[in-house]
Amino acid sequence: MRIVLDAMGTDGAPDSEVAGAIRALREIEEDIEIVLVGDQEILQAEVARHGTVPLDRLHFEHAPDRVLSAEASASVLRKRPESSIVKGLRLQREGKADAFVSAGSTGAVMAASLFILKPLEGVDRPAIGTVLPTAKEPVLMLDAGANVDCKPHHLVQFARLGNIYAQDLMGRELPRIGLVNIGEESEKGNELALEAHQRLAHDPELCFVGNIEGREIIHGSCDVLVCDGFVGNVLLKFYESVAQFIVEYLRSYLQRAGTQVALDEALCVLDYSEYGGAPLLGVNGVSIICHGSSSPNAILNAIRVAAQAVRTSMVEHVARELRSKEPA
Amino acid sequence: MRIVLDAMGTDGAPDSEVAGAIRALREIEEDIEIVLVGDQEILQAEVARHGTVPLDRLHFEHAPDRVLSAEASASVLRKRPESSIVKGLRLQREGKADAFVSAGSTGAVMAASLFILKPLEGVDRPAIGTVLPTAKEPVLMLDAGANVDCKPHHLVQFARLGNIYAQDLMGRELPRIGLVNIGEESEKGNELALEAHQRLAHDPELCFVGNIEGREIIHGSCDVLVCDGFVGNVLLKFYESVAQFIVEYLRSYLQRAGTQVALDEALCVLDYSEYGGAPLLGVNGVSIICHGSSSPNAILNAIRVAAQAVRTSMVEHVARELRSKEPA
Repeated sequence: MRIVLDAMGTDGAPDSEVAGAIRALREIEEDIEIVLVGDQEILQAEVARHGTVPLDRLHFEHAPDRVLSAEASASVLRKRPESSIVKGLRLQREGKADAFVSAGSTGAVMAASLFILKPLEGVDRPAIGTVLPTAKEPVLMLDAGANVDCKPHHLVQFARLGNIYAQDLMGRELPRIGLVNIGEESEKGNELALEAHQRLAHDPELCFVGNIEGREIIHGSCDVLVCDGFVGNVLLKFYESVAQFIVEYLRSYLQRAGTQVALDEALCVLDYSEYGGAPLLGVNGVSIICHGSSSPNAILNAIRVAAQAVRTSMVEHVARELRSKEPA
Repeated sequence: MRIVLDAMGTDGAPDSEVAGAIRALREIEEDIEIVLVGDQEILQAEVARHGTVPLDRLHFEHAPDRVLSAEASASVLRKRPESSIVKGLRLQREGKADAFVSAGSTGAVMAASLFILKPLEGVDRPAIGTVLPTAKEPVLMLDAGANVDCKPHHLVQFARLGNIYAQDLMGRELPRIGLVNIGEESEKGNELALEAHQRLAHDPELCFVGNIEGREIIHGSCDVLVCDGFVGNVLLKFYESVAQFIVEYLRSYLQRAGTQVALDEALCVLDYSEYGGAPLLGVNGVSIICHGSSSPNAILNAIRVAAQAVRTSMVEHVARELRSKEPA
């Protein structure tokens, strides 16, 4: 399989991308090939710094342009046709690659993926999934920010998309679906949650376990957590920052107390880079979005996720499931 | 001043309430009196266990009934007229007390406060404020769950209510108002946030600092954080549980590593009980809602907050400000 990596996405591009790609070629068992997209000269120079590299499985696609993070996402296709994001995604649409990974602007990757890969039949609103560490197994939360105003049937579609992702990528046989809400009882919630609850509860294809309160999320009592993209985005960013804050706070407290403790090992449970990137689910292709601050390890893990999505034919699985369904 | 304390609210009532009330009588400088509401016989027996108590400042109001947490909040007034919540709030409405504190069901305290105290003129939707610990000063977030479906002008009212609370109770001279949103830019957000942003930005009475992303909340870059009650409730409960999870996780990790560290002191920055209860803002009276699991210390701090609200004439301040305003 061939995975396209946008090499101009991270804040310090292309260092993390190139290092992550080379580790992926060395460490991922499968016979994967990687296409680095970006300024070819710069990329080749960076690759040359890495010593022996399996060059037969590393390819380059020259993209002279780059999307800046401040740009309006909607105009990326028109204004940046030669950017690494647009050129990388086109490779997949043209059948020259199987998956796309980028740490570029989330909005730009999302918009370009929607335009170039297109939504699958039966999907109104592709959604961004994101894996949250919990006290038990990680949970897939979606939507993490693609759709800020949602109708109840969109939340049901997110549940169906997440259901397949959790099966194919997270090894959950019968994923438990939860709905973010302000109370456990089915009569709790805003208009969106009340109606979505009823629809989810009556969906015969889903194992709906009911409402999940804010305090319940961290306990990992479901596999897929559904919410609109506004709530999901706020929750996700809040989680990352709170975890970091508490850890930094405790670290400095322990230092002041003269205690030498290696917290880093303890904290890898909270390390997002361990979970790879966030998939854009519901498009006709594999598109994985990484943090702009991704380390080589985060890039490696995102490539791993992309490879797994290709290996399990996740997109065909989603297409089959959603095409055959009644409207949500 | 006279503060009414619902003595039947916490899970282990009335122990925490009685202990908290007695500490308040001993420790709060002001000439406060407390009215304990609940089964008078039980309360007097509990008070007797505490040795010397300033009984001249401790009063009892017999309430034979109690609201159960599972009950529908809306029917509390009709079904539980003899409950400690209803009888306690009536004392304030009748002018026999200045403030009310309860650790009973949030929904029941809120519904009874709305019915008995009534919203102030010019307030469509009273809101629950809650104080979040941050890396800097604590932030008042509202609404924390009273109103799950909001219009933009409700969010502006929350900002005005929070603005006064932050001045009177938190010592912020010119409170910085932030709006929970998915991006910093004014054109980011769902329909509600987009419109609320415009209205807040053009309100001459408010020091609006713009959108606050999920990752920014913990950095304490504003004094008042506005959102609808759905988002606020999910965020609040999530915060409490994540903080607790990380702390417990690190505690057990450090124990396994054989490190003896007293984390408790380090963690009081994250201890909600330090901040007292959550005020219901916008009603014609002082109503402070505490956790069902409140310790005596949490009850003491909630009484402190209630006393401060009375001392600063917060309700009159809110009434004056909102009555004179153009509709939000």
